[in-house]
Amino acid sequence: MTTSIDRPTRNGVDTAGLFATIDAVKATPAAAKFQFRASNEWISGTHSRSTIDDFFGAGEERTHERTFQFDADHPAVLVGADHGPTPVEFLLHALAACLTAGLANIAAARGVQLTEVRATVTGDIDLNGILGLDPDVRNGYQGIAVRFAITGDAPAETLRQIIEQSRARSAVYDVITNQVPITLEVDIL
Amino acid sequence: MTTSIDRPTRNGVDTAGLFATIDAVKATPAAAKFQFRASNEWISGTHSRSTIDDFFGAGEERTHERTFQFDADHPAVLVGADHGPTPVEFLLHALAACLTAGLANIAAARGVQLTEVRATVTGDIDLNGILGLDPDVRNGYQGIAVRFAITGDAPAETLRQIIEQSRARSAVYDVITNQVPITLEVDIL
Repeated sequence: MTTSIDRPTRNGVDTAGLFATIDAVKATPAAAKFQFRASNEWISGTHSRSTIDDFFGAGEERTHERTFQFDADHPAVLVGADHGPTPVEFLLHALAACLTAGLANIAAARGVQLTEVRATVTGDIDLNGILGLDPDVRNGYQGIAVRFAITGDAPAETLRQIIEQSRARSAVYDVITNQVPITLEVDIL
Repeated sequence: MTTSIDRPTRNGVDTAGLFATIDAVKATPAAAKFQFRASNEWISGTHSRSTIDDFFGAGEERTHERTFQFDADHPAVLVGADHGPTPVEFLLHALAACLTAGLANIAAARGVQLTEVRATVTGDIDLNGILGLDPDVRNGYQGIAVRFAITGDAPAETLRQIIEQSRARSAVYDVITNQVPITLEVDIL
């Protein structure tokens, strides 16, 4: 027996809210302009700490419900103190989380109940690049592999299509597989 | 008065260790092959949690000194519960942390003592892309801006060159400004 609620959710997704958001952006495309931000403070060696707090979106300045802080560092084998994951590991987390969030939304929109979703992401990198030892080796990952394990109340083909649609609409997947221009300014204090 | 120590550090960087690592990789280029990993578990809606623990590098399987876990989510305005930053915010953190770690290493290698390094990173995104409302709008960031504020015991031009070299050797900067292939596999359980 199920209990009806005012705002039905599927996969924990407020699908009515999701469709309302899409309709609101359709009506006012400028509401879709967002700016996300992180500020970072160097601590020592390869150890730094980022703060994520405010952002702009849907026409106004906003703040997260709390301020998030994350440390990054290198492990000892890369001459760091291991106070946090490496920056390139945070990138893999971002990719997995983006694909998974999209997947839950898309499944909900298509009426599919997910039971379990797990992803492992691996990135291969050759440090001859960043160490400047081989000009033919790039600095970043040479390739990234994502592997999803998923269960839900839909045929395998439907679940595959949902993952495919999540990939087709993922912000982080787009950033990594296509290029984004970065500007860099420096203030010498 | 300063005290001499066995392994001198500058900027918290074990510069002798850094040069020893570079020499070791020069002698055995295969030692530079690393694989980083993140595993992610869906929790509910857009909320998921990644675990970062083991990696391969310098010829063997390794683990961080502790297991790191990070939650990602969407804020309420993006129909989430704000249990963590958005995946695209983690990407900005990764970029800032990568540039800053490189900067500290490069400054140390050049004998420059840094006093303070701060960075703010902003990314502009138009959600008409991921919402599927405008085929001409990309899913990911349209542009990212990094702004460094730095102080150290070197002329402004030297500090600028150190930041420029950090950009030229940053793994995350490379991933974002050039493309990395991603493979995606799905196991339907």
